[in-house]
Amino acid sequence: MFKTLSPEWLDDLAVRRKNLQAALSVQRADGVLVAHPVNLLYLTGRVYCGWLYLPVEGSPRYFVRRPNDLTGEGVFQVRKPEQIPEMLQAEGLPLPKTVLLENQELTYWDWMRLSALFPGAEVVDGSSLLRQARAVKSAGELSLMRRTGSRQASLIDQFASVYEPGMTDQAWMIEIFRLMMQGGSLGHLRVSGSTMETFIGCILAGPNGAAPSPYDYALGGCGLSPALPVGQAGIRMEPGMSVMVDVPGNFYGYLTDCSRTFSIGPLPERAYAAHRVSIAIERAIAEAGKPGTPCVALYEMALEMAAQAGLADCFMGTRQKAQFVGHGTGLVINEWPVLGARSTHRLEAGMCVAVEPKFVIEGVGPVGVEDTFVVTPDGMRNITPCDPAIRKL
Amino acid sequence: MFKTLSPEWLDDLAVRRKNLQAALSVQRADGVLVAHPVNLLYLTGRVYCGWLYLPVEGSPRYFVRRPNDLTGEGVFQVRKPEQIPEMLQAEGLPLPKTVLLENQELTYWDWMRLSALFPGAEVVDGSSLLRQARAVKSAGELSLMRRTGSRQASLIDQFASVYEPGMTDQAWMIEIFRLMMQGGSLGHLRVSGSTMETFIGCILAGPNGAAPSPYDYALGGCGLSPALPVGQAGIRMEPGMSVMVDVPGNFYGYLTDCSRTFSIGPLPERAYAAHRVSIAIERAIAEAGKPGTPCVALYEMALEMAAQAGLADCFMGTRQKAQFVGHGTGLVINEWPVLGARSTHRLEAGMCVAVEPKFVIEGVGPVGVEDTFVVTPDGMRNITPCDPAIRKL
Repeated sequence: MFKTLSPEWLDDLAVRRKNLQAALSVQRADGVLVAHPVNLLYLTGRVYCGWLYLPVEGSPRYFVRRPNDLTGEGVFQVRKPEQIPEMLQAEGLPLPKTVLLENQELTYWDWMRLSALFPGAEVVDGSSLLRQARAVKSAGELSLMRRTGSRQASLIDQFASVYEPGMTDQAWMIEIFRLMMQGGSLGHLRVSGSTMETFIGCILAGPNGAAPSPYDYALGGCGLSPALPVGQAGIRMEPGMSVMVDVPGNFYGYLTDCSRTFSIGPLPERAYAAHRVSIAIERAIAEAGKPGTPCVALYEMALEMAAQAGLADCFMGTRQKAQFVGHGTGLVINEWPVLGARSTHRLEAGMCVAVEPKFVIEGVGPVGVEDTFVVTPDGMRNITPCDPAIRKL
Repeated sequence: MFKTLSPEWLDDLAVRRKNLQAALSVQRADGVLVAHPVNLLYLTGRVYCGWLYLPVEGSPRYFVRRPNDLTGEGVFQVRKPEQIPEMLQAEGLPLPKTVLLENQELTYWDWMRLSALFPGAEVVDGSSLLRQARAVKSAGELSLMRRTGSRQASLIDQFASVYEPGMTDQAWMIEIFRLMMQGGSLGHLRVSGSTMETFIGCILAGPNGAAPSPYDYALGGCGLSPALPVGQAGIRMEPGMSVMVDVPGNFYGYLTDCSRTFSIGPLPERAYAAHRVSIAIERAIAEAGKPGTPCVALYEMALEMAAQAGLADCFMGTRQKAQFVGHGTGLVINEWPVLGARSTHRLEAGMCVAVEPKFVIEGVGPVGVEDTFVVTPDGMRNITPCDPAIRKL
């Protein structure tokens, strides 16, 4: 189905579904019913309103409420999910005795409705399985991630060109948005979890770097309004401030994450020193990270390096500290794995991980770098290559 | 709590909570536990990561995971929801025997976790009650809605100034985004429902007006990528095309909806004729709508007027038709009520309703208007006043 997708991409999607079917088989599940836009995009190559039923063996069935012009093999236009069981049976497919649903994404109402489609079936959580699948990118996804990272990095090199002295953080952000979108960004960023929100990224200038955030970002910012407490605060960027720009790239639906630090004029030496520690931590993680490396070990190494530099107090925030130094990225921010204190993940080849050791320097602002890395059999490769130094505005 | 909020706004929030407590009492519920950002914003005036417990009588308790600097009466910093029952008991509050949860917003996992906090309690769906509460705006909310509508309308009058011949729909949208954000828009639009997505609004040029969408918008557009199938298609705006610009205003967290139609040069007369019918339908709805009016009657009147004009085939889409002509708006798009075929809502004073009778003209594009109205005891008042005519670019 989905005529706008290339043959190569359709093949890539088939590989992802095949891998998921293998995982279903291990779990002795008969199938998975998928409803969440992110998982539909991952498994079908596009967002639609409806459901995907993937049996443990055989071809997928696409149940589509909207749009009404999707056609092709295995596509069924439906009005409601209650039509699914009879359609499966008409296809000669047995109804599942064990079925996976997205327990961590479906609302309670939707879960009740979907679980009632297969009376007597055991319903098992499929969210973790899908998240694990999404964490390890396919060949096609890796290619898009690399292209995304490259485009994002080259746009970051243009951010200074749209800065003007006296700007507020928000005024600069507006010009950065424009650059990103002129450069092909789709804008909208998908976030994971029902309590995460963002717009297109954020700029944290000076004291706003330390603002405790309701969201689970490395540094959040207080935002322009209590109605959207994230990112820019509407403050004038003054000489002596550092400014962290964290605007993910999204050109094909996949997200890379890369932050760079700017300064309004020169900064105190302690800011540069902390920035060098950030670069060193990022490099150390990239050198230590191999398939099989426990993610918690990378986090602990980062904590240790920050402490050795005498910067434990301002690592990953001051008044409120993030409990991680990196996170997976892909269709959403954040994907698995987490490089955090309680992480049980290990790195695997094909994972894409944003590493963001950041400091908040009292009286200056946030410093540090963030880059997205692909985990390869030989180690971690930076796919957002651009100058990591603090860029003077 | 929440030191950044004005005394007037805190009073307004107290009125909203009082009204919700009255509704809890009618339902014989002992309290509601709220987790969704939109409902937290509605009841506390800001987004935080955590929960609000509102007992049927007495003062609210705010359980906050992040940010860690919220303080004040009734605020408790917590790490996890399992701390809530003991904290309530320490406050001398009885644990609820009947408790409302957001069954339509909470994920299945979160619902299971929260419902386990009160063993033996009956858990009742609170989502509809909260949605009904949000539908009828408080005095403070109405004031913000009016200010939002006024700001949005005056920005729409500037859209033509950033158009240049030969632009793509996306290139114009980027300039419109910039204008909106320079004019104070927060950008991010909250949508209702786990399968709705958007960015900051959309521009539908020419044939893209007819594109069937996965989302439940009046007209959706096919988007720039199957990864985000909504809005602009990246097509060049050519003479003879109509272009619908539908970019909600969001300056304080509240959304007003206003669409206007532009044309690249002159359009065929049938496009202007359909546009006049759209204006007439909007006016007829605004004149007919009073507190107590069944919303389905307004929808049926719109269908009837479109049919009488010989335009039934292209009303609310062609290849795929939206089943509504208007929707509530406020903290999210869409709020209640729905002016649709299966709506059971009646208008109430204080509701804010976007009315959007739109047509898609073969070979031209989308035409029509959308405005946001406040329902008053005397009828519907337009709060997005600007010239409804097709604006020639």
